[in-house]
Amino acid sequence: MALEIDNIRNQFPQLERKVHDRPLIYLDNAASTLKHISVIEALNNHYTNDVANIHRGVHYLSEHGTIQYEQTRDSIQDLLNAESRCEIIFTKGTTDSLNLVAASFVPHYVKKDDVILISTMEHHSNIVPWQIQAEKIEAKVKEIPITDDGDIDEEAYIELLKEGNVKLVSMAHISNSLGTINDIKKYISLAHDHGAYFCVDAAQSIAHEKVDVQDLNCDFLAFSSHKMFGPTGFGVLYGKEKLLESMPPYQGGGDMIDVVTIEKTTYNELPHKFEAGTPHIAGGIGLKPAIDFLIDTDLNVIKRYEKELLDYATQKINEIEKVQVIGTAKQKASVLSFVVDGAHPHDLGTLLDRQGVAIRTGHHCTQPLMKRFNVSATARASFSLYNTKEEIDIFIKALNKALNFL
Amino acid sequence: MALEIDNIRNQFPQLERKVHDRPLIYLDNAASTLKHISVIEALNNHYTNDVANIHRGVHYLSEHGTIQYEQTRDSIQDLLNAESRCEIIFTKGTTDSLNLVAASFVPHYVKKDDVILISTMEHHSNIVPWQIQAEKIEAKVKEIPITDDGDIDEEAYIELLKEGNVKLVSMAHISNSLGTINDIKKYISLAHDHGAYFCVDAAQSIAHEKVDVQDLNCDFLAFSSHKMFGPTGFGVLYGKEKLLESMPPYQGGGDMIDVVTIEKTTYNELPHKFEAGTPHIAGGIGLKPAIDFLIDTDLNVIKRYEKELLDYATQKINEIEKVQVIGTAKQKASVLSFVVDGAHPHDLGTLLDRQGVAIRTGHHCTQPLMKRFNVSATARASFSLYNTKEEIDIFIKALNKALNFL
Repeated sequence: MALEIDNIRNQFPQLERKVHDRPLIYLDNAASTLKHISVIEALNNHYTNDVANIHRGVHYLSEHGTIQYEQTRDSIQDLLNAESRCEIIFTKGTTDSLNLVAASFVPHYVKKDDVILISTMEHHSNIVPWQIQAEKIEAKVKEIPITDDGDIDEEAYIELLKEGNVKLVSMAHISNSLGTINDIKKYISLAHDHGAYFCVDAAQSIAHEKVDVQDLNCDFLAFSSHKMFGPTGFGVLYGKEKLLESMPPYQGGGDMIDVVTIEKTTYNELPHKFEAGTPHIAGGIGLKPAIDFLIDTDLNVIKRYEKELLDYATQKINEIEKVQVIGTAKQKASVLSFVVDGAHPHDLGTLLDRQGVAIRTGHHCTQPLMKRFNVSATARASFSLYNTKEEIDIFIKALNKALNFL
Repeated sequence: MALEIDNIRNQFPQLERKVHDRPLIYLDNAASTLKHISVIEALNNHYTNDVANIHRGVHYLSEHGTIQYEQTRDSIQDLLNAESRCEIIFTKGTTDSLNLVAASFVPHYVKKDDVILISTMEHHSNIVPWQIQAEKIEAKVKEIPITDDGDIDEEAYIELLKEGNVKLVSMAHISNSLGTINDIKKYISLAHDHGAYFCVDAAQSIAHEKVDVQDLNCDFLAFSSHKMFGPTGFGVLYGKEKLLESMPPYQGGGDMIDVVTIEKTTYNELPHKFEAGTPHIAGGIGLKPAIDFLIDTDLNVIKRYEKELLDYATQKINEIEKVQVIGTAKQKASVLSFVVDGAHPHDLGTLLDRQGVAIRTGHHCTQPLMKRFNVSATARASFSLYNTKEEIDIFIKALNKALNFL
């Protein structure tokens, strides 16, 4: 099966807009994806007709909203092949999910001088939460180095595990800066062999390939709605039930309690124990059609199509003199980071923008990775299932024009 | 100036819908408000045309989104009369805001055996976060009792302050269960006189009266977008600049950092220090027109109108035999909690719903308060500026019908 690309594109209304009087070529999908028409319609319908607070109301709109919101949990359970719906915790986004794990897991499972492993290629959201929590208990955050191609240095990883006291490994499934697809199934197994838990930052993989938490056997997995065609301000933390059961709550408030007195509070069951306060109701309801779209379209088909786009773009960009692609791992997703001798990424981004082409430039919230490659920033084009080879041609043409100008 | 009620009602499309084939009478505004048409349109436009991640992009859509999102911060500064825009922190909602203060302020400012004061009427979101953080450092959470009318027991409050070691008082501006409007300006001054900081839960006041943080002289103030006609999943924490400056970050991730290495991270300036990760962009952009609407409509006018509604409803409900209003403070906002001898609130709520009238029933996330009044639950009608006396007549009629049935 192949993607019916015109049909797909028709489902993303923003693709019809112009920027600086040019058709928008949106190649900033690793930062945020455009929204599927069914998401926009679901949000519009909710806010126009169906508003009510959920979970505790007996009136129709409250019950209706609760059913809709909780259906999203079922859909995510399906998407991830999770064993139980109570393993699906709703959060504000990947960052919130990772902070939840750090704040709840670390004080409970990690002791002084124990080790948390992260890799050089992690996003700041998968670095700083561990630092903050480790510092409080004098645990150590150590770095799994990467190769010049942008792969995890597997030997070094195993050595770090062998040194002992590693309680948790937290790693991106796909690097937002390099596009490297990490072989996390293997890395998870290695971590478990050495008695360490494993947390996956799936922000960059969830809309780009099939993620099966039982097959991976990960302990935690985090991602965001806004990177999978859904609303902003909404995300997911998957965690193994027994592990989540054993962890203390993160935030306190409504919904997460059982009995409250001023002296003492007992907590609700999963998943609510980790969901304090009125949730982002519209965000949850709006995410469901995005998941339906992903499942219907088939993530294996999406992955194959995006790989074609990446290969095409990589070939084309390598034809340009002075361009150096940063991130040349064998297994790569649809992220193309590059630097050009003599041209600052910021200037490239600005000149591409004038031609309607949206790419991202900067450190991509991965400063340690930038340091590893001796660059302060890269330019990054990132593709989604609605992009085309024709758009890549326009991007390459615009890039050449920008380089001639500089 | 009076409210042009028909004009107002035309701006809330959900008021046109039916429930169980009856026109919706929405009296659950303390739980969540309906959405203003300009909010719905702003969200729809953003998701259809303007999606991009913000703050770090050089392309047009990213810069456009950043400007729009940050304008909301200016609007909130105006709404609250805050001294600086960097005192406005964006969060997931009131609960998230209060947890932020608890997690960041308490370990830094409160020591073992120090005291945090909360009142009997607090929402769980203003109880549990303090308990969680206090327990970690062996500080004490103590209770300011309330009177039979549902007012703060001022003498007892002063006694508790005099006992010493009170580092923070956290109190609702308006009680979500009782409607009591607490004289927080006085209570803040008293706290300061005794060397304690003061945090205001303004979830129930922000859309119902003018809240001026400089006039109140509060140290922190928290509220939610979804209770002020705006999107779900978005909220605000106001904090005095010097205080926020002195506090450690809450969550780690993108945006909140300055320089990141695996060994050490330095943090960004306010307000970004407290805003990790991709924010709820659409939520921020969608809240602005709600604020504009509140300012244009005039919160003093709104307060006066809602007081009329409350007085009318109170008079009408008191005419019904067996009804007992819970919460009879002199200063009350548009919340009417009641119990009926021989009728469970849950059953009342269900029977009213069948007649199109949406009220809330239960403990309203205020279990200590329920215990104080020896009830397990109340029925609660809560009014907003789009409600009318005609709707209250229908509510009272439906209530009588329900009581005849039971």
